[in-house]
Amino acid sequence: MRALRRGTNLSRVAGFNEAVVIDAIRRARDGLSRVEISGQTGLSAQTVSNIVRRMLESGLLQEGDRVTQGLGKPRTPLTLHPDGRYAVGVHLDPLMVTIVLVNLRGEVAAHVQRPSPASAEPSEVVADIAAQVPLLLERAGVGIDLVAGLGFASPGPINTEHGTVLDPPHLPHWRYVPVADELAERLGLPVVLDKDVVAAAVGERWTGATLGQANSLFLYLSTGIGAGVAVDDTILRGSTGNAGDIGHLIVDARGPACHCGQQGCIGVTLSPAALVESAVAARVLGGAHLDAVRSADPARVDSSFAALCELVDAGDAGAVGVVDASAVQLAKAITTLANMFDTDVVAVGGPTWMRLGKVYLPRLDDLVQPGLVHRPGTKPVSVVGTALGEDVIAVGAACLVLDHEFAPAVSSIALAH
Amino acid sequence: MRALRRGTNLSRVAGFNEAVVIDAIRRARDGLSRVEISGQTGLSAQTVSNIVRRMLESGLLQEGDRVTQGLGKPRTPLTLHPDGRYAVGVHLDPLMVTIVLVNLRGEVAAHVQRPSPASAEPSEVVADIAAQVPLLLERAGVGIDLVAGLGFASPGPINTEHGTVLDPPHLPHWRYVPVADELAERLGLPVVLDKDVVAAAVGERWTGATLGQANSLFLYLSTGIGAGVAVDDTILRGSTGNAGDIGHLIVDARGPACHCGQQGCIGVTLSPAALVESAVAARVLGGAHLDAVRSADPARVDSSFAALCELVDAGDAGAVGVVDASAVQLAKAITTLANMFDTDVVAVGGPTWMRLGKVYLPRLDDLVQPGLVHRPGTKPVSVVGTALGEDVIAVGAACLVLDHEFAPAVSSIALAH
Repeated sequence: MRALRRGTNLSRVAGFNEAVVIDAIRRARDGLSRVEISGQTGLSAQTVSNIVRRMLESGLLQEGDRVTQGLGKPRTPLTLHPDGRYAVGVHLDPLMVTIVLVNLRGEVAAHVQRPSPASAEPSEVVADIAAQVPLLLERAGVGIDLVAGLGFASPGPINTEHGTVLDPPHLPHWRYVPVADELAERLGLPVVLDKDVVAAAVGERWTGATLGQANSLFLYLSTGIGAGVAVDDTILRGSTGNAGDIGHLIVDARGPACHCGQQGCIGVTLSPAALVESAVAARVLGGAHLDAVRSADPARVDSSFAALCELVDAGDAGAVGVVDASAVQLAKAITTLANMFDTDVVAVGGPTWMRLGKVYLPRLDDLVQPGLVHRPGTKPVSVVGTALGEDVIAVGAACLVLDHEFAPAVSSIALAH
Repeated sequence: MRALRRGTNLSRVAGFNEAVVIDAIRRARDGLSRVEISGQTGLSAQTVSNIVRRMLESGLLQEGDRVTQGLGKPRTPLTLHPDGRYAVGVHLDPLMVTIVLVNLRGEVAAHVQRPSPASAEPSEVVADIAAQVPLLLERAGVGIDLVAGLGFASPGPINTEHGTVLDPPHLPHWRYVPVADELAERLGLPVVLDKDVVAAAVGERWTGATLGQANSLFLYLSTGIGAGVAVDDTILRGSTGNAGDIGHLIVDARGPACHCGQQGCIGVTLSPAALVESAVAARVLGGAHLDAVRSADPARVDSSFAALCELVDAGDAGAVGVVDASAVQLAKAITTLANMFDTDVVAVGGPTWMRLGKVYLPRLDDLVQPGLVHRPGTKPVSVVGTALGEDVIAVGAACLVLDHEFAPAVSSIALAH
């Protein structure tokens, strides 16, 4: 880290410029010609030509057919070669471990889910992940030599430097587990660990809803609620890699009491358990659901939340009313964050969003815009759903590897220690 | 902007490495030898030697006496030459314009204050600033050829790209004023515009309370309340340069009503007017002060706030109680931000802090630490007062120029458009 405190030299510059070229091609929907790459990156035609030649040889890029448009010169678009490189992504969640194999474009080539890590011993979970990876590769017909590495996304707190999961609140058995070292040893792959929301933000930027957006954030709605933020094309990680903890951000002064002594902290206001409690209070769900969500058993909470979502799907006016009321709180979270980070796009995902996004989304635009301050002129903030669905964090975890290897970053230009 | 989307080349690398060397020297209390610079930056001895020679010639660095310590090799420390370069900083505030001249170390060489821009026409204020600058230089005996530029710090919203002050809420006459162009033309100096809190954060990092801190934030307590944030050695500016707007961050669910419909937004909870209202409610101040703070006349608000601060200074138990209660709200703001940004150090400044910091500071440590989540191990967040006093934003504005010219940044390596 502290990349801006290290100098650079010619060999680091070459790697940086390669990343800048890949990044420009990735953001272009229909590929880019060499001339267009040169225009966008400021690199000379000769430099672009050299970089493109090396990348065609190493299989990272592919060349399309020559296209003649109107009177202009013919144009040969370059795109990322989807099979040029792969990465494995792992999402550790209290209810489920998701493992995906993605190609260089961030497309999922294979996918598997394994239930219930919360009740399992971490060593068993890690061994199971290590056993699944070769099966995934086999199923997709991808050789391990094409796999750039494995990205592991975990709830915080984590220690990114040591690759250790510290003590996430909803994973009681996970205490100082060195997942990165253990998986690297078992699989012979480089492993990178990051927070779940950081991974998701990287994934949405690599291939999803915030592709090409320099200032964007990803809001994750699950048992826990967090944010992954990109400012000026850089993902925020903070001093210990745990940035994005917004659990005690107050989103409703009249919201439920939080153990911190305040009211309406987002963690106790927009969690599935809180929505179920609101539904019980509104007599939309029976009182038995209250015991379930107060049990702190993730499976029981999830089952009660599913009952609420079924009512919403069936068009129950009371259930929809509960969700509508929470849309105001979600909008307050979005405006507070968008004002703080001066963000252009907010992508929302996570299990809560997957179930209720269709109710939330049409309401958010009207609720968010009036809360925005200091947006010069009339630059609205757009709120969109995740483009990566239920696997957003697992795909994001794989994209951590691609991002580390292929995205231009200050760290990619800094001389190593 | 979008620096990470541009490539780089050898000439840009040279400038970047120079900035890395200056940055390393600046952060070292007792200067650095060439060997130490090489160790910290990763640059070769030859590269460091060349850079240092050029900077000694251009007067940016100075060489100390050879020092022999114990059995080690003698060491010749290099420090920034204070008179090597200067910058002018301007802070536009509803009550006052502050203009400073600072040297390369960020030390104030000259200083002037001009009252009441809120009631004056912007064109008059700009003309007055332009007239004051030559007088400052003359008083400090500094030639204009040594001045790297002028930094202008304004409340938001601003347009950093066009150098325009848009329409800050407490400056009713200021509507789309192109301050950067006007001052550049009158003075023949490069002018850079940034938000007040961004300038302050840059200043504290250049020469103040957060020197050398990669992850720090600056909290400004004045008529308006804002934050300037550095994550991983980069100052956050956001999509339009207006990041750090936290006026509607809720810091107390039981706080005063805000026009946004919520309660306890920091802007209506910790402002001087809000503290006076609390004091009136607690019968510490008379009811006449309520009219004053509701008048929206900055001078009347300030005078009522001064009355409260005088009671605090005199040890009035009721007045101290009002401030004590607000320390809890200030701590909530700090924990929310520190959790979100994963920050190591929070520096607090601004007129409210200058008057009440001695009451706040001893209480904050106990109030802040319990609210921190996800700090792996036991890494506390330290809260400190500004090291730059009343002039923090003006000094910060000058440091914007120094930072732009001499600090390593992604933008400093990117090929120009």
